[in-house]
Amino acid sequence: AWEMLSSWLVYFSIGIGTAFLAAGVQIAVELIAHQKFELIKDFFDRCDKQGCLYQPVLIWMGINAGITLVGAALVTYVQPMAAGSGIPLIKSYLNGVRVPGLLSLRAFIAKCVGVVLSILGGLACGKEGPMAHSGGIMAAGLGKGRIPWFGKDINIYGLFRNDHNIRDLVAAGAASGVSAAFGAPIGGTLFSVEEAASFWNTELVWKVFFSAMIACFSTNFLLSAFEGHPTQLSNPGLVRFNTFPNLTFDLIEIPVFILIAAIGGLTGSLFVVMNYKLTVFRQKYLHRKKWIKVLEAGLVSVVSAVAAFFLMFTVKDCTEADPYNSHAITTKVIIMVTMLNNSSSNNHVDDDNDDNENGHDDEDDEEEEEEEEEEEEDGRMIKAMMMIRKLGCSGESHNSMSTMFLTTPEGCLKSLLHDPLETYSVASLILFVVIFFLLGVWTYGLSVSSGVFIPSLAIGAAWGRLIGLGVVQLFPDQAKDVGKYALIGAASQLGGILRTTISLTVIIVECTGDISFGLCIMISLMISKWVGDFFTTGLYDMNVEVSGIPLLSWEPPPLCDDIYVSDFMSQPVMTLLSVERVGHIYDCLSGESFNGFPVIEQDPSVFCPEGQLPRNQVSLKDFDNPYPVPQRLKIKDIELSEADKQCVMDLTPYMNLTPYTASLGFSMPRVFRLFRGLGLRHLVVVNDSMEPIGMVTRKDLAKYRAEIKKGMLHMEQLTVENR
Amino acid sequence: AWEMLSSWLVYFSIGIGTAFLAAGVQIAVELIAHQKFELIKDFFDRCDKQGCLYQPVLIWMGINAGITLVGAALVTYVQPMAAGSGIPLIKSYLNGVRVPGLLSLRAFIAKCVGVVLSILGGLACGKEGPMAHSGGIMAAGLGKGRIPWFGKDINIYGLFRNDHNIRDLVAAGAASGVSAAFGAPIGGTLFSVEEAASFWNTELVWKVFFSAMIACFSTNFLLSAFEGHPTQLSNPGLVRFNTFPNLTFDLIEIPVFILIAAIGGLTGSLFVVMNYKLTVFRQKYLHRKKWIKVLEAGLVSVVSAVAAFFLMFTVKDCTEADPYNSHAITTKVIIMVTMLNNSSSNNHVDDDNDDNENGHDDEDDEEEEEEEEEEEEDGRMIKAMMMIRKLGCSGESHNSMSTMFLTTPEGCLKSLLHDPLETYSVASLILFVVIFFLLGVWTYGLSVSSGVFIPSLAIGAAWGRLIGLGVVQLFPDQAKDVGKYALIGAASQLGGILRTTISLTVIIVECTGDISFGLCIMISLMISKWVGDFFTTGLYDMNVEVSGIPLLSWEPPPLCDDIYVSDFMSQPVMTLLSVERVGHIYDCLSGESFNGFPVIEQDPSVFCPEGQLPRNQVSLKDFDNPYPVPQRLKIKDIELSEADKQCVMDLTPYMNLTPYTASLGFSMPRVFRLFRGLGLRHLVVVNDSMEPIGMVTRKDLAKYRAEIKKGMLHMEQLTVENR
Repeated sequence: AWEMLSSWLVYFSIGIGTAFLAAGVQIAVELIAHQKFELIKDFFDRCDKQGCLYQPVLIWMGINAGITLVGAALVTYVQPMAAGSGIPLIKSYLNGVRVPGLLSLRAFIAKCVGVVLSILGGLACGKEGPMAHSGGIMAAGLGKGRIPWFGKDINIYGLFRNDHNIRDLVAAGAASGVSAAFGAPIGGTLFSVEEAASFWNTELVWKVFFSAMIACFSTNFLLSAFEGHPTQLSNPGLVRFNTFPNLTFDLIEIPVFILIAAIGGLTGSLFVVMNYKLTVFRQKYLHRKKWIKVLEAGLVSVVSAVAAFFLMFTVKDCTEADPYNSHAITTKVIIMVTMLNNSSSNNHVDDDNDDNENGHDDEDDEEEEEEEEEEEEDGRMIKAMMMIRKLGCSGESHNSMSTMFLTTPEGCLKSLLHDPLETYSVASLILFVVIFFLLGVWTYGLSVSSGVFIPSLAIGAAWGRLIGLGVVQLFPDQAKDVGKYALIGAASQLGGILRTTISLTVIIVECTGDISFGLCIMISLMISKWVGDFFTTGLYDMNVEVSGIPLLSWEPPPLCDDIYVSDFMSQPVMTLLSVERVGHIYDCLSGESFNGFPVIEQDPSVFCPEGQLPRNQVSLKDFDNPYPVPQRLKIKDIELSEADKQCVMDLTPYMNLTPYTASLGFSMPRVFRLFRGLGLRHLVVVNDSMEPIGMVTRKDLAKYRAEIKKGMLHMEQLTVENR
Repeated sequence: AWEMLSSWLVYFSIGIGTAFLAAGVQIAVELIAHQKFELIKDFFDRCDKQGCLYQPVLIWMGINAGITLVGAALVTYVQPMAAGSGIPLIKSYLNGVRVPGLLSLRAFIAKCVGVVLSILGGLACGKEGPMAHSGGIMAAGLGKGRIPWFGKDINIYGLFRNDHNIRDLVAAGAASGVSAAFGAPIGGTLFSVEEAASFWNTELVWKVFFSAMIACFSTNFLLSAFEGHPTQLSNPGLVRFNTFPNLTFDLIEIPVFILIAAIGGLTGSLFVVMNYKLTVFRQKYLHRKKWIKVLEAGLVSVVSAVAAFFLMFTVKDCTEADPYNSHAITTKVIIMVTMLNNSSSNNHVDDDNDDNENGHDDEDDEEEEEEEEEEEEDGRMIKAMMMIRKLGCSGESHNSMSTMFLTTPEGCLKSLLHDPLETYSVASLILFVVIFFLLGVWTYGLSVSSGVFIPSLAIGAAWGRLIGLGVVQLFPDQAKDVGKYALIGAASQLGGILRTTISLTVIIVECTGDISFGLCIMISLMISKWVGDFFTTGLYDMNVEVSGIPLLSWEPPPLCDDIYVSDFMSQPVMTLLSVERVGHIYDCLSGESFNGFPVIEQDPSVFCPEGQLPRNQVSLKDFDNPYPVPQRLKIKDIELSEADKQCVMDLTPYMNLTPYTASLGFSMPRVFRLFRGLGLRHLVVVNDSMEPIGMVTRKDLAKYRAEIKKGMLHMEQLTVENR
């Protein structure tokens, strides 16, 4: 009973911890963003009278690039495992692959601090993937009660020591992270189960669900407390699409949704393909030197900022509609934009007063001229002096591009989902989609801590809105609102990129809070997955594939029914006798890359696989502490004298007496199911007389992978990197 | 691609079919209930002037008893497998146990028609369990394209022929049933996975989820269409708790919730224990004759009606609060009650006019007298003549007991959840809880089609409300609303009875539509499960145990680490040679109750288990149709001449060449995981020289079951019935 209680306590702390983490990241982003805007405001104020608008813009870029460089350096030099969303790695880990450094404290710090810096740096990225990863790391740390801290272990207590338990905790941590990010405990749990967990078990899922629920609730509580009303619980998650009031749909709208879904699948595959090419290019040329990685991130940040400002200053998409601005950061951004324009208009007045002063550079000049023209058109220049104008827009209107670009991707997503019909023009939406899509592709895979959820949703929402505008044009009587098209577009785009189905449906349903619209979301995710799967695998799977991790999927690959165990087993087998010379054991351990060896009986007439010896039990010095410590002694570091080598050692106490075996007639799918169903790492292949003639490991199985390219299925034999 | 599409099509039809089923049952209940009330109204009208109120009451009882008898007879004589909720049986089936007749058309008819009759018969039962069962049957029928119809098979097409596929479909059907019943597609899916499915697989869950979503949506559509507004979609499920507006809670309320949860666990175990005793008693004495089963059901119906009327006429709990009556049946019941009282008041007037007429029986007389006293107290007898009064209550008020009893359990549940604070007095709530609890225990296990969800929820809501009243008394400043206590009570009671956690949480969250209250529901379900598990197993597990079905749970039973395969395997083994005499095969098949036999090589020096022969492949006449047909030829019906018996038969083409084997050293948990992980039905136990020395089947494993009684864990060896 004590054990049960303490295990629940750990799951509880995972939830609480993840909530603190999520709330901390959110609050840090908000506070620092505020400081950033304050700073830039000062510059504007100072620059005001000298007419040097290019200065604050350059400073803005500089700040972004600087922040991004710091973030990239943190990830690259402290723990490269913290790059990207982390979900593919967590997935691999939960699948049973050992990923060194994934759950270390360094990765935790790089991930959490890194994601704050990435978002502040203005990159097109979200914080959901990193949230899941850092939740997982924290869970592992809480479970182990021991954190690998720069080579040393900090021991607290030792409740969960075996690999299996830690894996369960990591699953809970990842679920809590997603739950805290989206305010979706059910969706988070299912995400963890669908994307990550290899073994489903009611007890485990219940505990994971518990953590996720606690995380969701506590995040809500903490963020509400930060805003000063802890009992009102108005912040169900970091990202919330906000409920759509009266979300209804007609059956005749379903074809439109299917069209949107198909486009989502197509563009999703395009995203995956482009990112794949980019990743391969990076692996080949760019990521050989660490400083190149860091510089690349800085470059992306500068390009993002340039693209944003260029679009904002050139596209004059003025709208009088009120932007949807319930998001704290968005609000601050709007205030900042107000400041910026305020000063810009003051600036103008200065220009008019003193036209000879030419302190502007070219682009700035052009912008100023355009603004001047508009001002003159307006004819109420002096009256407008005190008015708030927004980037070249006059009167009460503001530049819609700034609503999309001068905010975090989350704020942008919300605006795209909820802003009224007229807010964005077709041209600005198209430009936004193209540029944000390219930035998204470029950003994902940088050596920074970044998630792909929010940018994908934002891209999808933008082109979904575009299609919605088309529908409104065609059927002006029927369609009144483009928000639902934007929502379906967002779902389809994300589905087309990730190919996750159950959990995404549930997450989006939980975010919108409408169950009957769930059917539409489900159908669009289904179709975008089908369309996408026709061309490529999902983004995470692509990631795993490119990094050469031997991941076993849910089902044995197709087209392998006629591959037998004799075709893919590793042979010959190194066998040990049950009483063996130390020298031979040493040679085996240092020479082979396997981690398990069949032990056979000495009598040569009956070769029975007496047992199988897991490698980690033979680390010689580690016998007093059988838990596989990440920093444990390497076999090559052990010095053995010749006399030592001549000693014999009885392996009987350490070996697994009842290993699973397969006979030569086992087919690939059968062996696959044995591995998946029983969570094996090694399987001894025996012939009819029970002599061990081969070993099968995950890597042997993962070699075979079915590839679907352009609708054709073919088998591929991967070269799995030895790691 | 065609196969994939058709498989999705089948899952789609399962959703649609279940929706039609659910809507059909709902509409049938409503229409017939309406007719019933019309009929009784006529009697009241006729009886009106003669002052024979006892007549309609007796007729009401008679109608209820009659309907129940028909329902019970239908279930008992047509297909006894249709009795009860069906979920334990579906669970066993999905676990891999063959339950004959479970998925037959007879069971389908008995289940669907039976549940309508049970509800109309006024039993304390719901329609969610039967919904899940009949959804499962329909799914199996749709998948097989063949329905066993009184011994013959109706073949339509043959897409899904193997057991595994059918099982997946049944899981989808069960999920759709729950989803349609509660309007909870996510909860339904999780229910199916948690309670039923033995193997979790993303692809499968996605398809199940799809069916459930379609079912939920279509039910909504159909019921809305029935009410005349198909596009408004106002009926998300058959049972919907209706959303609680502004459901908030303080952290300090959590201790109260925990108290409620603990009570739920206690009363839940009490329910299970009482039902267990009753079931054993029934199995021993009552259910030997079929007509006794039918009579018992009729008796329960009469007793339910008597209890209801007795309470309504004796307890004068008058309230002026408006009952919550958005439910169609409830509305009709209220109209009917109005009629009843109208006539009763007219009746009174008659009495006053003609006091010498003594046509009433005793109970009725008493009631009349009480009414009279109240009338006289009121002092406005004549003015009240035209007013609508309700069962002894005067003025605008009505009898709260009638709100609870004169409706379906669903309507009762809704009233208890949503009625305002003052509606029910403490005394009437206590009486209701006690009587409804006893009726619930008695009803579950009758030979009628009935579910236990709704009665459990109603009981819990009643005592939750009671506790809520106490809280309001103690802290009049804080607590204003008792609805949330009723909700937590309902959840705890159901959790205490069923011990299902994840899916119940999600179902209730989906029903109430509030995610932040989900934490409270989750905690109360968790605690009620813990408290309940301390005393007994859950109701469904108890059912399975009593019926002797060899069900394998998720985890190996505790305390069995030192039980080895040699302790529980069946021996000696009947082995067959790979070329064997027909006579020996015949003897094996007719003599043994096993379904698989190891085939060994002829050379007596090397005993290798050459393969294993599944029984259903040797049904001799069945070779041209290897699918195991329920009505296939029995081995005993085959006549073999002595000459036939001397023939030899080559078994090589039919045997499984790579059977799974276990060595003698395998421990119980290990064998358990092999069975669970790989879905085995047989495992050959071999010694070191690979001679088959034993067989392990599910029954051997299911023999061992850990029992927790009064907090003490002990192992029990069950005697598993051979079926």
